[in-house]
Amino acid sequence: MEFSSKLLENAVYEMSQLPGIGKRTALRLVLHLLKQPEERTQLLSNALMTLKSEINFCKTCNNISDTEVCEICANPKRDETLVCVVEDIRDVMAIENTSQYNGLYHVLGGKISPMEGVGPQDLYISSLVQRVKEGTVKELIFALSSTMEGDTTNFYIYRQLEGLEITTSTIARGISVGDELEYADEVTLGRSILNRVPFESSMKAN
Amino acid sequence: MEFSSKLLENAVYEMSQLPGIGKRTALRLVLHLLKQPEERTQLLSNALMTLKSEINFCKTCNNISDTEVCEICANPKRDETLVCVVEDIRDVMAIENTSQYNGLYHVLGGKISPMEGVGPQDLYISSLVQRVKEGTVKELIFALSSTMEGDTTNFYIYRQLEGLEITTSTIARGISVGDELEYADEVTLGRSILNRVPFESSMKAN
Ligand SMILES: [Zn+2]
Ligand SMILES: [Zn+2]
Repeated sequence: MEFSSKLLENAVYEMSQLPGIGKRTALRLVLHLLKQPEERTQLLSNALMTLKSEINFCKTCNNISDTEVCEICANPKRDETLVCVVEDIRDVMAIENTSQYNGLYHVLGGKISPMEGVGPQDLYISSLVQRVKEGTVKELIFALSSTMEGDTTNFYIYRQLEGLEITTSTIARGISVGDELEYADEVTLGRSILNRVPFESSMKAN
Repeated sequence: MEFSSKLLENAVYEMSQLPGIGKRTALRLVLHLLKQPEERTQLLSNALMTLKSEINFCKTCNNISDTEVCEICANPKRDETLVCVVEDIRDVMAIENTSQYNGLYHVLGGKISPMEGVGPQDLYISSLVQRVKEGTVKELIFALSSTMEGDTTNFYIYRQLEGLEITTSTIARGISVGDELEYADEVTLGRSILNRVPFESSMKAN
């Protein structure tokens, strides 16, 4: 792609570094911004820069939060004996959206994936084990994607919890195997939390 | 979509203002930036802000350019008697990419579309007529999309040129009717410029 302007080329290049945004899409987006008032570009830039520099993660559950402890963890009406283990804050948003769950969360920040070079030490697993050791949590609900990496991560955490007094369950697999959690419809996802099964029996089913 | 952070919500909102970027895609892009080093976000923001504040349009052809007159207009090897009229700088890039064309361009900045409230006065049409009146240009090649709006725009310009000594042609419609110019393959697009037909006969064909 030959550009008539270095400034344009540079903007398209940076935009095309975003995942799933090819050069053509990047050019379309950049030309759109060029047609808009300057304020539009300023608002976008500022929002991204401010998020990046001021972002905070809840010190309890690792959810993105504007406060030291997130609104969910700080809410006295939530059941603090129940912790739902998810990969990503998008999963928290998806589960919250079902209005079926009243416990807390623990955001791992991904799943174990040797292929992508993600090991247990790259995830918020030791903080989860620490949280369980503190004694308030009675049940962990594994709500990771039902993929090989998700199963591996569940099992790794399960092993780390050996000897601790904790019930583990996984969300009911009403969601078809291989599907990403965040794309599940609300009804299916809500039901699969209510119908969660003990983790041990889910392992036998595999 | 419920967000656990106003900063996150704001960044997603601004990203989703881009065309074709829904809330979910915006969230995915923003979370990607969050996982990258801060430099990534800085480079993107700076590239967009710099482009927007320093952008320049060629005073002859309205192409995006870092200089007052663009490289194409300033190139003495190009045939200045030939001007190809296009909607968008993406069309200039597409035609340049064929290496079949050695004339100059005129970028209208869109096409007449009453549906979208775009009239002749919103486009660089009067500067095109002025350019023709100056006498160097001998032929205009209309290379707008073969849509109703494209045809309307061609015809409007054609009427504005009445009484002036100028040959008008349209690119050969080897490209199927309704297709966007920028998505045409290079061979077809290059050939359709070489095989251009007089504008009058293209009107009869419709
Ligand atoms: Zn929290
Ligand atoms: Zn120019």
